[in-house]
Amino acid sequence: MVEIPDSHPRRASLLARGKLVDAAAAGLLADSAMIAHGRGEAFDYLLGERTSESAARAIREAARRLIVAKRPVISVNGNTVILAGKELVRLAAIIGCPIEVNLYYRTSERVSGLIGVLADLKGEVLTEEPPEDFNGDWLSSVDSVEILGEEEDGRIEGLEGPRSICSSNGIESSDVVLVPLEDGDRCEALVSLGKQVIAIDLNPLSRTAKTATVTIVDEVIRASEKLVSDALLDVEEAHEWDNEVVLREALEIMGSAMARF
Amino acid sequence: MVEIPDSHPRRASLLARGKLVDAAAAGLLADSAMIAHGRGEAFDYLLGERTSESAARAIREAARRLIVAKRPVISVNGNTVILAGKELVRLAAIIGCPIEVNLYYRTSERVSGLIGVLADLKGEVLTEEPPEDFNGDWLSSVDSVEILGEEEDGRIEGLEGPRSICSSNGIESSDVVLVPLEDGDRCEALVSLGKQVIAIDLNPLSRTAKTATVTIVDEVIRASEKLVSDALLDVEEAHEWDNEVVLREALEIMGSAMARF
Repeated sequence: MVEIPDSHPRRASLLARGKLVDAAAAGLLADSAMIAHGRGEAFDYLLGERTSESAARAIREAARRLIVAKRPVISVNGNTVILAGKELVRLAAIIGCPIEVNLYYRTSERVSGLIGVLADLKGEVLTEEPPEDFNGDWLSSVDSVEILGEEEDGRIEGLEGPRSICSSNGIESSDVVLVPLEDGDRCEALVSLGKQVIAIDLNPLSRTAKTATVTIVDEVIRASEKLVSDALLDVEEAHEWDNEVVLREALEIMGSAMARF
Repeated sequence: MVEIPDSHPRRASLLARGKLVDAAAAGLLADSAMIAHGRGEAFDYLLGERTSESAARAIREAARRLIVAKRPVISVNGNTVILAGKELVRLAAIIGCPIEVNLYYRTSERVSGLIGVLADLKGEVLTEEPPEDFNGDWLSSVDSVEILGEEEDGRIEGLEGPRSICSSNGIESSDVVLVPLEDGDRCEALVSLGKQVIAIDLNPLSRTAKTATVTIVDEVIRASEKLVSDALLDVEEAHEWDNEVVLREALEIMGSAMARF
């Protein structure tokens, strides 16, 4: 990967791009992954490349719902693993839930490849300091994070073909699913199965953003880092949540970015 | 390439994507090309995926300026060649100007590859009907379109390294440059050399959009098709042009896409 000076104003964005370019070269991403990332970049640019106050509220609520869930699961695709895999391993260790590799354009090569990446990231997290506020046995919590996705023994009702495949111990039996960067069809199917869906999506106008139970309109790395710190806060009940409010606030920020010109 | 039904509502967008995926696999595009395309998709989505009235005015003005220019040139990068190469060969034949392959991340392999693609497209245009309103010898007009880019005998003052390389008979000696999908640095350098720069850029907030003489805030395929038909209209003088007005109008359209939610 190219070197980017620490002082570069767009360092985070360029590092993310570099990681995706390398992962694409390694065959870990679908053809459309880079295009999807570019779309996200445009919306993040309009957001000012920072977590808004309303996205922070959505993240706080998402953390609450993941903590109080009976069977939470984190569903990840290629871009999510490459960009935020390590933070999500930490989040899974804190919450005590599995991570499921679940791809829109499913191939067994990419599923295995991404499971391998997550296993390596788990190894890295094991060698690092536990989060400051974590109460419990960090090593065994990290070690017990299950990485699912190869079983193909579950189905998402309402979807057809390879896109309906999931893990019976993961998405199929979950009550709350965190799905960063999900497509609209799958988000709708999961919601209509009665699951709570927490989406991370930079486009507040997307079908996923509009359909999810809680939508975090934020960049996946920033959102995952904040999910980790919020998941360490005291457990509370889930609140009443009006998802339309956060979408509207995100649109206002983006709209005013345009008006500032 | 995958088959996409004629009736598919996002057919144009999916076809464009498919072409880029194939070109990337053939090594014709820089790593960041797909990301750049994705960013454009997001802004086009906010534009409603159609040429606005103000973009149409910018295209009309761009066609006028290309027609009355002394030494016009069309500068193309990888995405432009793959998406709109054929329309730009037709435009070059109508205007009587060269096309120069000029890449931000220049490698001689990609320059040669893209020149090869343009040569093939020239061959295709030769076998097709001339535009209805074209007066003159279409075959010889198409045949005489020069494809530049390999000479490396010119320099763009104000840029450093490989990015300053250009053709002495192309960009270096031009008075009006059509540069679809240009980067901000190069756009600024060309303008500060006293050239008129006509940019096609979907992001009305980009440095290129703000710096160019005439900015067409539109998707490159739609804009190129309309440039071809406008270039066939009667020759007129260039008009007074307030570029800020078209940028502001594009921002209003995108802002109201968000307000419609």
